[in-house]
Amino acid sequence: MENFTEKLIEKQPVLEGRVLNVRVDRVLLPNGKEATREVVEHPGAVAVVPILDGSHVLMVRQYRYPVGKMLLEIPAGKLDIGEKPEDCARRELEEETGYVAGSLEKLTAIYTAPGFSNEIIHIYLAQNLCKTVQKLDDDEFLTVEKYSWPEIKEMLADGAIQDAKTIAGLLLARAK
Amino acid sequence: MENFTEKLIEKQPVLEGRVLNVRVDRVLLPNGKEATREVVEHPGAVAVVPILDGSHVLMVRQYRYPVGKMLLEIPAGKLDIGEKPEDCARRELEEETGYVAGSLEKLTAIYTAPGFSNEIIHIYLAQNLCKTVQKLDDDEFLTVEKYSWPEIKEMLADGAIQDAKTIAGLLLARAK
Repeated sequence: MENFTEKLIEKQPVLEGRVLNVRVDRVLLPNGKEATREVVEHPGAVAVVPILDGSHVLMVRQYRYPVGKMLLEIPAGKLDIGEKPEDCARRELEEETGYVAGSLEKLTAIYTAPGFSNEIIHIYLAQNLCKTVQKLDDDEFLTVEKYSWPEIKEMLADGAIQDAKTIAGLLLARAK
Repeated sequence: MENFTEKLIEKQPVLEGRVLNVRVDRVLLPNGKEATREVVEHPGAVAVVPILDGSHVLMVRQYRYPVGKMLLEIPAGKLDIGEKPEDCARRELEEETGYVAGSLEKLTAIYTAPGFSNEIIHIYLAQNLCKTVQKLDDDEFLTVEKYSWPEIKEMLADGAIQDAKTIAGLLLARAK
């Protein structure tokens, strides 16, 4: 494999935010020229494909401010500092849907936008679900919905599901 | 469907970059409380699943500075100002791989990171490919590789393919 590594020359921080840090780096390209790279640092996240009764997937519908619309997604959330992805997956699943996973299996980890961000999302398959109690934050607003695989297939084909981690997670779970 | 819209109160721009604009918005939540939202504005992009001889997929391997590694992806690129996604798909496919598409079919459009960015990627299936000439920019470094569906299935299962748009595009193309 050829090595096209770009080497950091200088970092310029532009935002230390609540969730994101943003910086503009000057880098050295493989051909010896310089370029700038705008980089969004993200703490990482998890997403879970929760299978109910072997036949349906639990999903959440919530408002996504950056795109200005409600999106239908698999349950997901950011990693707390030092939190293991599997612990985060169990926590987010229960908080958002009110179910705990009897079994949790890692499907993959994806980079959502590697052209400008280091965000990585660890995706899990959750089965043997047991009902507990949903624990939303005060400032978290979502509805939990459940869909059969034929319904999901239709929503993937007609564009009703548009979130990247959700499409990847659903299709990887289905392909197993 | 319940309406969980968050209303803009005030925008604070923090970066007007070469590719990205970043802002921090103060918003009004559905419960009347205020919150901040860190938003990365992106011009939008396309990605193409190019099928060669009905049995292989052309992919590109390139260094992704934000994640610090080489990733195997489907051909993709940012929309120029005013450019139609379909035109961009044809352009990027030819520039990166040296093939033009005899047929081009839209698979879907995905939001890669709707929690913090408005990036949308329009994904196309390209078939009946004809060889022309690769036209990389001076500062673009990538290798073109081709894989069979069994090889892709294995790379999806073992984590060798980690890019979200690539996973979504490959599995949507395969599901057709």
